[in-house]
Amino acid sequence: MTVFDAELTHLKEMLLRQGGMVEAAVREATLSLTERDSELAQKVIDEDPLIDGLENEIDEECIRLIAIRSPKAHDLRLITTAMKINTDLERIGDLAVDLAERALELNGEPGIKPYIDIPRMAETAQAMIKDALDAFVHGDVNLAHLVMERDDIMDALTVQIFNELMIFMVQDPAIIPRATRITYAAKYLERLADHATNIAEMVIYLVEGRMIRHNQTQTS
Amino acid sequence: MTVFDAELTHLKEMLLRQGGMVEAAVREATLSLTERDSELAQKVIDEDPLIDGLENEIDEECIRLIAIRSPKAHDLRLITTAMKINTDLERIGDLAVDLAERALELNGEPGIKPYIDIPRMAETAQAMIKDALDAFVHGDVNLAHLVMERDDIMDALTVQIFNELMIFMVQDPAIIPRATRITYAAKYLERLADHATNIAEMVIYLVEGRMIRHNQTQTS
Repeated sequence: MTVFDAELTHLKEMLLRQGGMVEAAVREATLSLTERDSELAQKVIDEDPLIDGLENEIDEECIRLIAIRSPKAHDLRLITTAMKINTDLERIGDLAVDLAERALELNGEPGIKPYIDIPRMAETAQAMIKDALDAFVHGDVNLAHLVMERDDIMDALTVQIFNELMIFMVQDPAIIPRATRITYAAKYLERLADHATNIAEMVIYLVEGRMIRHNQTQTS
Repeated sequence: MTVFDAELTHLKEMLLRQGGMVEAAVREATLSLTERDSELAQKVIDEDPLIDGLENEIDEECIRLIAIRSPKAHDLRLITTAMKINTDLERIGDLAVDLAERALELNGEPGIKPYIDIPRMAETAQAMIKDALDAFVHGDVNLAHLVMERDDIMDALTVQIFNELMIFMVQDPAIIPRATRITYAAKYLERLADHATNIAEMVIYLVEGRMIRHNQTQTS
């Protein structure tokens, strides 16, 4: 193994570490909502600068490797893809913060009903993030395709939450502000999954050299 | 001017061209909503592949320049920043498509009231995209800061639209589905502006070497 190979392995490890951090942020932000745990929500918000810091480190490492190793062909694409994935991961972290902020607001008000679909969405989204990164690290196109397929589940769950809350709102207009906040929480999780899907698309492009675009069906 | 300088100028021109295309998509998607012009909405949706195609071309040009010119220091950062900006621009294009899709749905139903704040948001967002790209092309940190400041206007307008629609929904629950779709339209414009803000942050980092994070106040 050359020094450069070891450096690329280390770069992948940094991305996996960032992936672990944003997955944890998503899990905790979701729990802070479903368990009405505002302390946990605050923790997610307070720890976001750690994700921002690691994003910066990863970018600097990519720039350093390009500058000193002058990589060509696949290695160069691997590093530029790592930089793009890095941006997506950081934005997933921002969405976890948004979710935690909605949790803080909702936890201060009476609940509407137990959360059922939100935890399912969060679990799917976390698995998508993990698998998208594994697909990158191992150049696994099949896994990348599986990530993209699960995006449809996320879209369907968002529609389901939207429709269900719509009925609640019509029956009891007093809950409209709270219910709308919950639809936003669902939207954040849907967008998290979109970022994982973007990562999967980039992995396929990196490995196969062809651009796959998931037919994004945004849910109203 | 060296060949490489000319190539960097050409790369910036490609990004400006992409910026023009996504600005047009945002403008047309907004008009398709406010003027209830479903044909225009369909045009935005149909033309999105052109934006995807140019995104791909710009990425390939960045990779090619890094591979054949082995740029160092500022030039290397300029090119990797261009790749990241390229991703943000393409996603702005996707949000214009989302907006056009909501327009198609809303145009098929009776209107609630004339759109007043949505056009203001769209105008501000378009100016932010244009200025963020100009800031990149000219390395203009002051302009980048002005872009970031306007993000607060976008957040305030989103809250305003949200609160106003909330009152309408409580008064007339029948409009809840339509009103919720309009809040999503506002959210897309807010997210467009977030992408412009991300571009501005990257410009400041490129020029000053320090990371600025806009204190994102997500609106519920």
